[in-house]
Amino acid sequence: MTWCVFRLGGARARAGLRIGDSVLDLTAARAPYSDVLNMSSLNAFMALGRVASHEVLDWARNVPADHPAMIPAADVTLEMPVTVGDYTDFYASIYHATNVGSMFRPDNPLLPNYKYVPIAYHGRASSIVPSGTPVRRPCGQLQDGDAPPRYAPSRLLDYELELGAFIGAGNRLGEPVPIAEAEQHIFGLCLVNDWSARDIQRWEYQPLGPFLAKNFATSISRWIVPLETLEPFRVPAFTRPEGDPQPLPYLRSEDDQRRGAFDITVEAWIETEAMRSRGIEPFLVSRGNVRDMYWTFAQMMTHHACGGCNLRPGDLIASGTVSGAERESAGCLLERTWRGAQPLELPSGETRRFLEDGDEVILRGYCERETVSRVDFGECRGRVLPARCGMKSA
Amino acid sequence: MTWCVFRLGGARARAGLRIGDSVLDLTAARAPYSDVLNMSSLNAFMALGRVASHEVLDWARNVPADHPAMIPAADVTLEMPVTVGDYTDFYASIYHATNVGSMFRPDNPLLPNYKYVPIAYHGRASSIVPSGTPVRRPCGQLQDGDAPPRYAPSRLLDYELELGAFIGAGNRLGEPVPIAEAEQHIFGLCLVNDWSARDIQRWEYQPLGPFLAKNFATSISRWIVPLETLEPFRVPAFTRPEGDPQPLPYLRSEDDQRRGAFDITVEAWIETEAMRSRGIEPFLVSRGNVRDMYWTFAQMMTHHACGGCNLRPGDLIASGTVSGAERESAGCLLERTWRGAQPLELPSGETRRFLEDGDEVILRGYCERETVSRVDFGECRGRVLPARCGMKSA
Repeated sequence: MTWCVFRLGGARARAGLRIGDSVLDLTAARAPYSDVLNMSSLNAFMALGRVASHEVLDWARNVPADHPAMIPAADVTLEMPVTVGDYTDFYASIYHATNVGSMFRPDNPLLPNYKYVPIAYHGRASSIVPSGTPVRRPCGQLQDGDAPPRYAPSRLLDYELELGAFIGAGNRLGEPVPIAEAEQHIFGLCLVNDWSARDIQRWEYQPLGPFLAKNFATSISRWIVPLETLEPFRVPAFTRPEGDPQPLPYLRSEDDQRRGAFDITVEAWIETEAMRSRGIEPFLVSRGNVRDMYWTFAQMMTHHACGGCNLRPGDLIASGTVSGAERESAGCLLERTWRGAQPLELPSGETRRFLEDGDEVILRGYCERETVSRVDFGECRGRVLPARCGMKSA
Repeated sequence: MTWCVFRLGGARARAGLRIGDSVLDLTAARAPYSDVLNMSSLNAFMALGRVASHEVLDWARNVPADHPAMIPAADVTLEMPVTVGDYTDFYASIYHATNVGSMFRPDNPLLPNYKYVPIAYHGRASSIVPSGTPVRRPCGQLQDGDAPPRYAPSRLLDYELELGAFIGAGNRLGEPVPIAEAEQHIFGLCLVNDWSARDIQRWEYQPLGPFLAKNFATSISRWIVPLETLEPFRVPAFTRPEGDPQPLPYLRSEDDQRRGAFDITVEAWIETEAMRSRGIEPFLVSRGNVRDMYWTFAQMMTHHACGGCNLRPGDLIASGTVSGAERESAGCLLERTWRGAQPLELPSGETRRFLEDGDEVILRGYCERETVSRVDFGECRGRVLPARCGMKSA
């Protein structure tokens, strides 16, 4: 079962729950908490915490498949499910951090803080868009060699394949969240594409981190998968190699170590304009697994709040690019083509170092195991529009 | 005249305009746009743009001082004036950037991008609090020498003396804002204290910038000064030293160069627990001027949107620490005491390298010139509460 906000006909947007091929209209079915579920965003319901969402999920298990409030999923329009107050992006894949670090800082790929600190930065909430929204190629300052920078369209546009966690119940300002309680604040997970302009990023990112390289758009999927649905796919946290430090005590719990990660496959596919016009299927570029992250979502949540920062219902914390040990599991083109040195060969005969105008990136996520029903995260799509900077260029 | 949201007696919070020693109740006085001014935040009014705010300010000039909607300022309670969607902090003082850079990167104090890029990072909107809200000392990872880090209260707590600009009318996602139009999107200015934990910052900030070092609290003043009020205090933009590059064309306008900066004095004062109990007046620690910033607010706005990022009504962009050429004009203790090497001597006989529990930081801002009436930004206050990390410590 996965959460959504949907619209049907001329009626107001409201919360739904996907069950099989149907969306259960929670308001029409008189679910518990119908008053807050009959809203155009899930925020008010999320604020009630895991006990409330658990109750609705339990209740929904007993709704018969032929209930009149069960609507064929194909008939509804999905809306942006949440109003995101603050968006934080972590850097939780050690493979991604090492790969990118080795390109940006060859002498010093993995910084000494990485194995202690769940590194993160604040992202931009205003430019988070739901799956299917086109994404305009940004302009920005590009700088090559010894030449002065110029303002021009980014040439190195990239996707980042990520998983996001939505905060349910918040914590108060000044009040940290112990690791044992962290998951009680996580409402569910979604797919995230943290679009990135690598050329803008390289020039601007020191000393305060990426800014315009990332804030032109972030796409999210329109379904939110509750942790309850993912229970069968829990796995132990990442096994730290011999010699790595243990997490500091505030980031360590036996339970989190034993079952704090999730076995979720995530994929990125590309479909170019030419592929679309010739009817060629999208091409699989990246396939990784969220269990490969160095930090669990509980650790990210607890770290985020450990200085007293308040997280509010609907805030989004994303994992950072999900990359694994193999080149095929690298979750962005920067790593996948090794900065363009090893271009992708597409079935259309085209090649790609970075994204071209008209390319559509499609993220997918799912959990599969023989004895359990499959969990589908749906898709997170975005097509690249040509730059339109609208200002005099250098 | 300065904007506020106020409360009087049991009535709902609503917008007001400070005129002299009074607050004009805009709803009661039937100001233009009273419907959106009769709200507990200014956001909806800000969204109408500068034309609307200009109209109300013009109208207010003709309200007689004895109008029944004029309330003594001392009688009202000021509320948080704006709901901040996204908060961005710039790094617009070249003195601050050079000072801090020389401590964190002695071999490379000012990075090559600084004179081209108005450097900024995304801050945390959830933890923005209005003047007078106490600020709890954060805990976080501290690391010294070769020892592994530990989770403990920050010992190097600092203030940052900044000015903030609130966005009025927003821009649409994907649509940059030319420099000539940038100020039309700025509703007004306020004082900002970007509290910073220097020890947490040093260990966490690479490669993605400051995170927990900053997101535990940001204080703002409760008055918003419209650009209209500041007109008499316009000055030319910072004079770039011989040899510095000119701003790229998208950041350059004759008008902005000629009058895009403001002559605003900003100050930081400290009052310790001992000073309070012994009746000793607060001590002036920093006095700087906003005209010393390397970038104007119009340049910051245009740069922020130049890749298509959308700014929304109520978003806050802050200047970064306002520091000048002299040690006394350094806008934070890190610079003012040169990382603690030159402690402050307070009139109570105490010394300060960084902030202690019980210290109150008071930011003030004003514009003065003989022939023009003084503009007062009011105060931005915050008292430091002892750390309370609430989690097992390493």
